[in-house]
Amino acid sequence: MSYVLKESQDVEPDPYQRNCGSRQVLDRIGDRWSVLVVLTLAHGGKRYGELAQRIDGVSQKMLTQTLRGLERDGLVTRTAHATVPPRVDYELTDLGRSLVDLVAGLEAWATGHLGEIEAARARYDAR
Amino acid sequence: MSYVLKESQDVEPDPYQRNCGSRQVLDRIGDRWSVLVVLTLAHGGKRYGELAQRIDGVSQKMLTQTLRGLERDGLVTRTAHATVPPRVDYELTDLGRSLVDLVAGLEAWATGHLGEIEAARARYDAR
Repeated sequence: MSYVLKESQDVEPDPYQRNCGSRQVLDRIGDRWSVLVVLTLAHGGKRYGELAQRIDGVSQKMLTQTLRGLERDGLVTRTAHATVPPRVDYELTDLGRSLVDLVAGLEAWATGHLGEIEAARARYDAR
Repeated sequence: MSYVLKESQDVEPDPYQRNCGSRQVLDRIGDRWSVLVVLTLAHGGKRYGELAQRIDGVSQKMLTQTLRGLERDGLVTRTAHATVPPRVDYELTDLGRSLVDLVAGLEAWATGHLGEIEAARARYDAR
């Protein structure tokens, strides 16, 4: 991936270009699980189990994968405590916090326009 | 899907609940191809071929599928002109236009923070 890294430092990032890393960043921040995790962490750190409970229906595999991706991208920190039983906390980094308003906007749009979208789908499917 | 429709009219939409349709809406609006199509249409209607050219590397299958999804969700209108050769135009609806600022924010965040994210990835992969 050093090609992508080099590329994106040489020119302005442009997600319209197939090799620009900003496309992957779009995938990360627009992903439904990322959105829900970032919003759940917006008001303070949470344990793994608290996240799993808040985000109804997320599989352990998807939650673990989402948290690892967010950690790798520098949006979330993971702290393992050497307690019995072991405890793992997740918190937003400054970079992660800079995303909160944006994903809160996505969430607000999705819930605020759900009725219109479902009506549009019903019209489309009926024609 | 009428269950989902009924459900979402009975209670406040809540994407933290597994059966709420707003989760699917999050998928739609956060999807990288939806983001790029909506932004490309933000300044006026475009033909299929113009979209395919602007969004580098999108396959015909993904572009067609994305446009159909956006049309079904009421975000885009499709107009086929009976010309020779046939011409198909895509335009944002009012609902689609209400999404422009939000997805422009995603795009700006993705391009503006790409360097930080790539640096975080390099640190993560090196440890």
